[in-house]
Parts: sequence; structure tokens; C-alpha cells
Amino acid sequence: MSATPDAVSTSRSPAAGTRGRWRPVGLADAKITGGFWSPRQQRNGDSAIPSGQDQLEKAGNLQNLRLAAGIGEGEAIGPVFADSDVYKWLEAAAWEYGRNPSEELLQRQRDLTAIVAAAQREDGYLDSVVQLRYGDEGRYKQLVWSHEHYCAGHLIQAAVAQVRCTGDRELLEVAIKLADHLVATFGDGKTVDVDGHPVIEMALVELYRETGTAAYLDLARWFVDARGHGIIKNHGHEPAYFSDRVPVREATTVEGHSVRAVYLAAGATDVAVETGDTELLEALKRQFAHMWSTKTYVTGGLGARWEGEAFGDEYELPSDRAYAETCAAIGGIQWAWRMLLATGEASYADAIERMLYNGFLAGVSLAGTEYFYVNALQLRGGAHADNGRSPAHGRRGWFDCACCPPNIMRTLASLDGYLASTSDGAIQIHQYVAGTLTAGEVTLTVETAYPWDGAVGITASGPIAVELRIPAWAEGATVNGKPVDAGTYAQVDAAAGDVIELKLPMATRVVGADPRVDAVRGCVALERGPLVYAVEQTDQEANVDDLHLLPQASVAASHDDQLLDGFTVLRTRGRAGTGHRDAVWPFATDSADGVGDEVDVVAVPYYAWANREIGAMRVWLPRG
Amino acid sequence: MSATPDAVSTSRSPAAGTRGRWRPVGLADAKITGGFWSPRQQRNGDSAIPSGQDQLEKAGNLQNLRLAAGIGEGEAIGPVFADSDVYKWLEAAAWEYGRNPSEELLQRQRDLTAIVAAAQREDGYLDSVVQLRYGDEGRYKQLVWSHEHYCAGHLIQAAVAQVRCTGDRELLEVAIKLADHLVATFGDGKTVDVDGHPVIEMALVELYRETGTAAYLDLARWFVDARGHGIIKNHGHEPAYFSDRVPVREATTVEGHSVRAVYLAAGATDVAVETGDTELLEALKRQFAHMWSTKTYVTGGLGARWEGEAFGDEYELPSDRAYAETCAAIGGIQWAWRMLLATGEASYADAIERMLYNGFLAGVSLAGTEYFYVNALQLRGGAHADNGRSPAHGRRGWFDCACCPPNIMRTLASLDGYLASTSDGAIQIHQYVAGTLTAGEVTLTVETAYPWDGAVGITASGPIAVELRIPAWAEGATVNGKPVDAGTYAQVDAAAGDVIELKLPMATRVVGADPRVDAVRGCVALERGPLVYAVEQTDQEANVDDLHLLPQASVAASHDDQLLDGFTVLRTRGRAGTGHRDAVWPFATDSADGVGDEVDVVAVPYYAWANREIGAMRVWLPRG
Repeated sequence: MSATPDAVSTSRSPAAGTRGRWRPVGLADAKITGGFWSPRQQRNGDSAIPSGQDQLEKAGNLQNLRLAAGIGEGEAIGPVFADSDVYKWLEAAAWEYGRNPSEELLQRQRDLTAIVAAAQREDGYLDSVVQLRYGDEGRYKQLVWSHEHYCAGHLIQAAVAQVRCTGDRELLEVAIKLADHLVATFGDGKTVDVDGHPVIEMALVELYRETGTAAYLDLARWFVDARGHGIIKNHGHEPAYFSDRVPVREATTVEGHSVRAVYLAAGATDVAVETGDTELLEALKRQFAHMWSTKTYVTGGLGARWEGEAFGDEYELPSDRAYAETCAAIGGIQWAWRMLLATGEASYADAIERMLYNGFLAGVSLAGTEYFYVNALQLRGGAHADNGRSPAHGRRGWFDCACCPPNIMRTLASLDGYLASTSDGAIQIHQYVAGTLTAGEVTLTVETAYPWDGAVGITASGPIAVELRIPAWAEGATVNGKPVDAGTYAQVDAAAGDVIELKLPMATRVVGADPRVDAVRGCVALERGPLVYAVEQTDQEANVDDLHLLPQASVAASHDDQLLDGFTVLRTRGRAGTGHRDAVWPFATDSADGVGDEVDVVAVPYYAWANREIGAMRVWLPRG
Repeated sequence: MSATPDAVSTSRSPAAGTRGRWRPVGLADAKITGGFWSPRQQRNGDSAIPSGQDQLEKAGNLQNLRLAAGIGEGEAIGPVFADSDVYKWLEAAAWEYGRNPSEELLQRQRDLTAIVAAAQREDGYLDSVVQLRYGDEGRYKQLVWSHEHYCAGHLIQAAVAQVRCTGDRELLEVAIKLADHLVATFGDGKTVDVDGHPVIEMALVELYRETGTAAYLDLARWFVDARGHGIIKNHGHEPAYFSDRVPVREATTVEGHSVRAVYLAAGATDVAVETGDTELLEALKRQFAHMWSTKTYVTGGLGARWEGEAFGDEYELPSDRAYAETCAAIGGIQWAWRMLLATGEASYADAIERMLYNGFLAGVSLAGTEYFYVNALQLRGGAHADNGRSPAHGRRGWFDCACCPPNIMRTLASLDGYLASTSDGAIQIHQYVAGTLTAGEVTLTVETAYPWDGAVGITASGPIAVELRIPAWAEGATVNGKPVDAGTYAQVDAAAGDVIELKLPMATRVVGADPRVDAVRGCVALERGPLVYAVEQTDQEANVDDLHLLPQASVAASHDDQLLDGFTVLRTRGRAGTGHRDAVWPFATDSADGVGDEVDVVAVPYYAWANREIGAMRVWLPRG
């Protein structure tokens, strides 16, 4: 029942369908072979995924499924969405097997798949926690909180990944049975209700792409359209929390719980593309643009509020209390990827880059096995961790609500799929990583030390039209020595044996914020290439809480291979603030900062913070 | 069983005991007769208190007590702490009766008291929700969340107020029976546990003062000392939430849930004073100072975080997401009052003034019958209310968790008690309000239009030493024409018939913030006298979200008797920012604000905001 990855021809990434502008590359057609991301994928496969399975065992997620399968006796443990973490792990394991097949990993997947299959009820229903806690009578009774569709969605995503990467169809059969049960149960004239937590929409479209069964696409569309009419009521949060205040096609922004919002938007994008619904796609463009211009952190982090894990108001982007959940960055990447394929607009690939290298990557330790749930852009010295998710704890091995760790695992294992896309006669390269990309008969070999160096060499094995994303930050970029426009795709027709030389300018950028972003008024952040930088206490002479950058100080970049797993360090000059240490009241007519001593300032990539020690950190530094 | 207020001789405010420096004034010895606060008290008595009883009926709080008393049948409704709102209302009604006796109000209190007495169990236990939901077996089983001591504390406070103001002893008998039950149940060798929500500590000390029963003081001390040793564990929040991370006498700051923290601190201050525990008092001084210098808003608001309704880290004071619960301001006033009486330090009276006129007073509408739970210092235009407590709703008539409204009622009704204190041969005047103050045989008549005007005239009926608080902000103040030091008490020996003339300078102050308060970097706030000002959209030419103050613009103050209930308006000049309305990404190298048109800027007292319309508002304005 298994197949080697090479024998599998379907796409590893969501297929764009006929109406999208670009198609994702197929399973074997994009391979990261070195550079920045390769060791991260390696650690994900070697350490994170095996340790993730141990964590699922320890936390009881696997035991819940065994109990539901009639193996042993006991009560369900943990949160109501416990199954979803197992499914995300199964998806990660499938992509990892596709990337780097091993018999052991295949066996792990088969063992877990057997448990999942055994837990499924005769009629296709599956949710171990609901089965154990509430029985058949409890099905879909509390859909707003039960996460039954959410778990189903992650199961379907795992099943699709599994069949694509291993050829195994066991989990797909479970997913189809469950999807058929959903089709039979929900819709007009049936049960009219939606899950409090979206993801089923993306999953059903993907299952439609895999199987061709139109009923799955129809149900996905129905779920998208059902929201926003007050279908979710009186559940302890206002409808906005559940993205249920405004119909998706009328919404002008994202709001409420950020992961829910971007998962829904990604699924709605899939629906729009597959059904040719241009009105819906336009609405999603509008929402993405508003999110990106008013509700996104400089790191690409999404979600300003701890309360409700939610998007804030326009320009409400506090650094210290940024929520910026790792899962929201992942959902943001998934949404942007679908928008990119649908529209061919470079800005979506720029958005993916920003989220990937910053808001997402900070969520995982360099070792690969510790995680941030919350990705703050500032931590003060001596901050007290009063919540299990507090950044002041540093990254942690697992969480009571463990949505982020296996979400990171599946993203890293499937990263190759986000590098490129194809259209008739052309290939688009979106992210620059050492590796190979294939379109038809032609293979492109990409060599680069990006993001440390802006030089990218691409060798074509045959004639092909290549479209290279020039990031919007890359003013002055050249392709084969000729200037190209930032924020677009540069077109190159390559002949066999040609080497395309892309040069992206890697000068450090000192960026300010729109004055309406009150939280960082008077501050700047440092960026270099796709990376946002941060200052950590361990590198500074002065107290980070008091540090100011000198207005005109130059910034020097130097690569340090020895520091952690190697990165480019930025050095500039600042001054220690004098603050008002002894003030009994901090708001006075003379509260202007005194002039402190000049000091060196060292900045490291934001993603790398808290890998040496947990201490004060800032992305935004006062200047002046 | 009743008595007129004049016949009651005990103090209306918490008695300071023998070891405090100053004594609160007695029941009939401080009377607000006009000026700023009198109409607010009037509306509180005429509108808010009667309407509060209706709300308690509608929300089911009273019904719970009836059911527990065996009147009717049904289940408990509402939050587990529902009884406490009834008790806070009873306390408010008692103080109001003391201020302005009416037979109708007395009858209302007696009717409710009869229900409370009937709900009490034979052995003294009383908590209607626990009785109805969990029965006798459920007592004190979930003390961390059940609020049984919290409800008991508010009952005791109401009972003490009732006996002091009406002479009725019925509620006091209930309180004593319940307190005796607590004494018999909790302590070393008995049940070792504490309530998740403090307030019982303050209440037991007050009951000790009223009855002389030392066991109540002992139990209060035991509750204070039991905390901070991990007595509260595994309850969904970390111990800091419950002020249980560090023992009170070792703590150096306030942390966790802000109302819980300041109620506990106020109770601990009572314990310290009554037991002569100078070590504990020193710890509380340290905690108050740290709170005031690093965790207090310019409005005196306490609690920076929605998540956990908690104090944030040092200098974490966001304007937009300020929680600053109205109850926390009330608790802060109660704590500062106890610290003032204990130490005689003017800074505590300054703190009371700041909280009272700003963070507290904004919590109630000018009509007196609508309330803010959360007191933000900024609301952006078009902000969406995604929570019942969101300031974007404007003030509301009641809340599912209705702790704030009756807390405001009891504070306004008992405000007279915070005006002054006495020591041997002297009277201290802390707050300047038109009214009369009596110390022994001497009556002082205070005449003033404060806070609109800084002139205060005080006429003495006989010889007396008067100590006048000169606020720390009042540099240049004079008493009888002679300069006095700000931040101290000015001493005046008055003879019979003397008129003391205090002049407080009422120039507008443009205040900045300690540079470590990241949230308001580059901004200033306007203050005049004890009032913090705010700009509301309804008064501006320009968009409040974009508004900047001109650096050198002068500020003109003018009194407008016609605007709402009359207040002094501030006018200055600013400019409309140009922002980056069309930016697709708000963080760029050229994000500095453009120069917009010059405009008039109008500021109104912060407490008065959202009484005309709910729209954009800012306390802190960018300057430059």
C-alpha cells in the first residue's frame, strides 16, 4: 500500500485548481538541499517529530484515541481539540517522509493511523474526546466549542499529505468516511451550524482536489457562507471572536481570534479559486490588504491581543503584549500562499517571506524542540511569567494547549512546497533557498547563502522562462547585472546551461513606523534582507530597557559562524537612558530622558532570540 | 432597633486603631454640602442606588438569596459571587442613609436584610449560590473560585455600615454569626485555605473594630499570612494571579489580578495597623511605592492587562488596552486611605485625589447610572467592541459581572469620610470640597469651587490646629498669602472666626512620561489641578487618531457652565498628522509623519469623556 515519494505525482501543496494564476510545484519538484533552511528541516525530522510523538503520548492525546477505539479503559484527557494535535503530527510525519523517507517514520505513521481508524465510529463520525465524554448523543451539540470540525479538518489535511507522500490510503479512507458523514449531516435542510474554529474549509477543498468529489467543495463553500449571520450566539464571546460578525464576502478586515480568522480566510480563498468566485476573492484581497497595512507586526506576527487571542483595532500593535501566536503566522503563510497562487501578486510572496523568517521562525528554538506560543517583540528585564504561554518563560517543550508545536513541524517539513510555482511555460521562484526546482523537463539548481548574502545563482538544465521575485525591500536589485524593479517578478528567459545571477541588496534598513502605530512612536527597527533584528540583554553594555539608538549612527553587519548556528550580527551605537529611577511618580513636566553614556549596541536576528538566555529583548528601539 | 445618624457615634470610616498616626473623622463630622461632589452624591442616591436594586432583581441576585431562604423554587442564577453585589448595594444604601436619611431607603435595606438573614444557615454559613448549587457538602470545597469569603467580606462591610448609619443590628448579627463560623472553620489546625479573591481581611478587621472581638483580627492576620506559600495551586492561573506567589510581608510589588491585589494590600494594612506590625507596614509602603512609580496610569488607573485583569510588568502601561478596572481604582483608594492614616504621608492623599477625580470618576456617567468596567486612556476611531466590557460600547447600565456599579455607589455615598482626619488637637484636610468638618467642639466650614478654582476658604468656629494638604503638583501654593511647600501638610493655627485662605495654582500642566513607559513615548498629557484631561473626537477639527500637539503652543483654560454639568475646557493648538493612509505596509524607512494642517485642539476632563458620544479619545497626545 505504500509508494516511494517519486512514484507519487500529485502536488505536495494545495493544488490551485484551474482558475488560479499559478500552480504549486509537485511533490518531487522542489527540494531544499542546503543553506538556511536545510538544517532546520533536518532537526525537525530528526528531533522535533519523534519528540512530538512522545509528547502526544505523555499528554494523553494518543490514549484518548485508543480509548475511543476500545483499547483500555479510562476517561478522555486534555482539551476538547486533543485529536487535532495528533493529526497535525501525522501530517508533519507524512511531509517529512516525503522529504526524507525512512521505514521507521513510515511505521510510526501506520501505527498511529491504525489507532485513528479504529477510533472512528461505524457511520464515519470521529472525535475521541466527544465520544468518550459525551457519547453519540453529544455529537455536534456544542459545535461552537467542541472543535469537532476543526479536528476533522486536521485529519483530512493529514490524510491528504499521507497519500501524497507515502501512497498509503488508510488515513484517506478514514477522512473520506468522516467527510461523507459531514456532508450527510450539515447544510441547508440538514444541521445548520458551523464550528467555532475554522480549518475544515481548507481541508474539504483539499479533499475535493484529491478525490474530485464535488460535495466536499460544496460543503466548504456552505461553511464559508454560513458564517457572519449570527449563527454562533451566546457563547461567552461576541461573534467577532469566531469570525461570525460579518459574512466573509462582506468583511473589510480580519478580526477576533487571529488563528481562526486566517484559517477561515485561507479556506475561503480555496473556495473562491475552485468555484471561480471573483467577488469572494476580491473581498479576501481587501481583507488581506487591511490586515497587512494595519494589523500586522513588523515581524509578520498576527494578533495583538492576549484577551481572545485576537486581532486588535487598526494600528494597535503593542510590542510587549504582542500575542502574535506562532499558529497565526502559520495560518497567515497558508492564506498568503493561496492568495499568491490565485493572483500572481509579488506582495503575497513578500508577506510569506516576512512571516516565515520572523514571526514564524521565532516560534521554534534553534534545536527545534522548544516553542514559543506567543511571540512578543519586547520583553522587559525582570518580567514575571504569570501565564504558561508567557514569553518570560522562554520557549517550552510543550503546552497544555499544544496547537503550535505540531503546526511548526508540519510547516517546516512541507516548506519546499512554498519555494516556487509554475504556469504554462514558466516557473516562478518565490523564496531563495539552495536546492533544485523542476518544471517539466527542466531543472533549476539554486545556489545561495541567502538570507546572509544577497547573491543567488540559478543554473538551468534546459530552456525555460524564469520569474524571480524581487522583494519590495530590495531596491537596487539586479538580475544578470541589469536593474530590476523591486516588488515585482523579474522575467528571464534561460537557455540550457545558463546561470542566472540575482543580486539582492543586503544593506541594513532602519525602519520607522506609521505614526498611528502608537506603541512604537519614536522608535526604529533594524532589518537586513528578509530578517528583522532584535537586541537582547546578553549582548549589550547597557540595560535594554533604557537603550536608545543614536540618530545618525551607522550600522555594520558581520557574519559570525560561531554564534549559535551562525548568523549575521548588526552593530551600531546608542546611549543608555538615564530614566527616572528614583521618581515616586513617573508622569511629570520634566520627564524627558536624560542623556546617558554612549554604548555599543548589538542586534541579532529576531528569530534567534532567547536561545542563549531569556532576558530583556526589544525589536523596536527608541531613537534620539 | 433603628437610630438616627446623629445618635451614632462610631466612625463612618475604618477606624485607625491606636497605632495609626491619624484617625478618620466620625460619621457626622464630615459633610459634603456643595461644590463638585454634592450633585454626584445626589444622583447616586436619587438614581443609581434605586436603579441598582432593580438591576439586582433583574439579574437574579436577590432571587438567589430568596431561594436559599426557602422562598420559591429554582436554581441559582449568575456568577458564583452574585451575593457580593447585593452586599455592596446594602453598604451603599447604608452610607446613603447616613448622608441623607429617608424612610423609603431604610425600608429597602430592611427588606433586603430580612432576605439575607433568612438565607443564612443555622450554623452561620451563608452563600446563596453555593447553598443552591452545591449544598452543605460543597462548602469551601473550591474556595479558590467560589468567592465564599469574598461574599462574606462584603456582607460584613455592609453590616458595619448599616449599624453605624442606621443603628439597625440585624445585618450585624448575620455578619457576626458568619464571622464566628469562619473563625471556627479556618486557621491552623482547622481548614487551611484562603479565598481566591481577597476582601475578607479588610472586613474582619472592621468587624473587630466594631465589636472588639479579637478573634476576627486574628483570623484576618492569619488569612494575610497564609498567602504566598503556594496555598492556591493548579487552578488555571499561576499563583501570582491570586497574590499567592510571594508572602505579603516579602513582596516588593503588586502583581496579578489588580482588584484582588489592592484589596489584599488594604486588608494587610489594616492588620498591620491594628497589630502594630511595623515590618508588615514597611512591606506595604514598599509595594505601594513600586505600584505608584511603575504600574499606575496617569489617571491613577490600576491594572494594565485585560488577560487576568492584571497588573503588568514595570512601565507596561498601554493607553488603548488599559484595563484600569473601576473596582481597582476603588480598591486603590481604600488602600491609600489606610496608608495615609497609618503614616500621615501626604503622598497617599495625593494618590487618593488622582484616583478619585480620574480613574474612579470616569467609571460612572454624569447621570450616575451607567458605568465603565474598563477605563481605557485611548479609544481609536471605529474601534469595534468585541467584549461586553469594551470601552467601545460606552458606559453600560449593568454587567454580567456587576462588581463595579455597586462598588461605585458605596464609594460615592461614603465619600465624606475621606475628606479629613484628626489627631490630638489637630485636624487634617485631605480633599477640598465645600462642606463642614468637625473636630471636637470646633467646626470648619469649607467653601471652594475646587477643582475648577484653586481658592479654598476655611472658616473655623473655634481655635484649632489645621493641617492642609498641599498637593505635590501645587508648586507655588499659598496659605494666607504665604508660600507653602507642595507635597506636605501646611500647618495653621486658627482662632475662632478665622478664615484660612488656601490658594492652589491652577495653571495647566503639560506632563510627559518616564521614558521607560514605552506606550506613550513622545506624548504628553494635560493636567489642571487634580484633573487629567482627554481629547474627544466630538470636540476636534482633526481626526483624533492623527492629532499632534504643537510643541510650544500655550494652553488656555475657560470654564463652561453649559457643557454637560459644567467644567473647565482646555484649548491649545495642534496639527493633523498625514499618516500614511495609502501605505500597503506601515513599517518603512520613511515612516516619519508628514506635516498636516494646524488645528484647534479642545480637551475636556477625562472623567467626562463618553458622556456625549462614544468616539475616538486620547489622554496622551503625540507632541511634535
